[in-house]
Amino acid sequence: MTPAAPTPAYRRLSVEERRSQLLASALNLFAHRAPEDVSLDDVAEAAGVSRPLVYRYFPGGKQQLYEAALRSAADELQHCFDEPREGSPLPRLSRALDRYLAFVDEHDTGFSALLQGGSVVETSRTTAIVDGVRRAAAEHIFRHLEVTHPGPRLRMTVRMWITAVEASSLIWLDEDKQPSAGELRDWLVEQFVAMLSVTARRDPQTDALVQALAEDV
Amino acid sequence: MTPAAPTPAYRRLSVEERRSQLLASALNLFAHRAPEDVSLDDVAEAAGVSRPLVYRYFPGGKQQLYEAALRSAADELQHCFDEPREGSPLPRLSRALDRYLAFVDEHDTGFSALLQGGSVVETSRTTAIVDGVRRAAAEHIFRHLEVTHPGPRLRMTVRMWITAVEASSLIWLDEDKQPSAGELRDWLVEQFVAMLSVTARRDPQTDALVQALAEDV
Repeated sequence: MTPAAPTPAYRRLSVEERRSQLLASALNLFAHRAPEDVSLDDVAEAAGVSRPLVYRYFPGGKQQLYEAALRSAADELQHCFDEPREGSPLPRLSRALDRYLAFVDEHDTGFSALLQGGSVVETSRTTAIVDGVRRAAAEHIFRHLEVTHPGPRLRMTVRMWITAVEASSLIWLDEDKQPSAGELRDWLVEQFVAMLSVTARRDPQTDALVQALAEDV
Repeated sequence: MTPAAPTPAYRRLSVEERRSQLLASALNLFAHRAPEDVSLDDVAEAAGVSRPLVYRYFPGGKQQLYEAALRSAADELQHCFDEPREGSPLPRLSRALDRYLAFVDEHDTGFSALLQGGSVVETSRTTAIVDGVRRAAAEHIFRHLEVTHPGPRLRMTVRMWITAVEASSLIWLDEDKQPSAGELRDWLVEQFVAMLSVTARRDPQTDALVQALAEDV
């Protein structure tokens, strides 16, 4: 492994800059290795600082660094969902999925380790961060679909699709990123419409939505 | 809480019987409470034995008991998938789902705690047990569909549906078991067919399967 170039000693970083730099180094390591395989020494080395300096910023050690890195990855992931409310909803969903799949591609090992569970760094706090991203994704979808009060059947369908997206991302990583991200994205959008259409048979709210989507395409 | 009736002292259990009895008490407690809320004393009390006796059988304490209980629940869950290979595949799937939903209903709190993750008792071993059940479910489905070599797209679709079933079970528990188990079951079977149909558009193997299912109904 080639360590990142150390920060030149003469460049004095502010507390905030240093913290960000350590976080970025940690996130980069956690993205590409299982949490068990990242040590505080690795983070110090990647950031070009001493181990005590890492501890000064993150007294809780690896667990605290992991949670901070996860929070920053969660923020980044939520930005993937930002999409102007212009044009038809399905192409908007496609664009958001493109950004999401690029994120998964970029953070592959960390993404798998996090979602597969059973990791030593997993706690109720890390679970809450992941759940927050899921909730945000559902809220974005309802906003784009212009549904202000989703009923239980529509809510269940959207949450089920979000879980299906996660599952298929994990399988995609497992299968060496096959099929292509573009094919996966199209398939996921079609699955979204198909799942809504099944629910539409027993739920008038979802039925109205599916009809609106069909007219919009 | 009403403790279970203690086993009469004069009835001497064999080692195997005693172990089963402790496991059954543990499973019953873990099914209805979060793992954090079950103590070794609770297990001893429910089984009508002393705490040292529980330790004699499970020297690893609560963690070992939890894993053993989970393994026994996983076995029970896998029995839900047992279904004779007679008649059309979709009614078979419905019957297996009925048994699965009855299992979820019966083990509600433990099921949620386990699948929501972030619990103190979660380890790579518990994750492996849950993954084993998922794999068994996929294998059962392929056997019933008479597919011996599922290609990547069909595999992804079936695994995605299994995850969707889990997610909808969790939401169902969250929503006070609404809609009824029967409606949820029908909806899940329809989702299965809809998800396969989307994949069928780009995968000949899945296409042949969907046509066979349509002829069979």
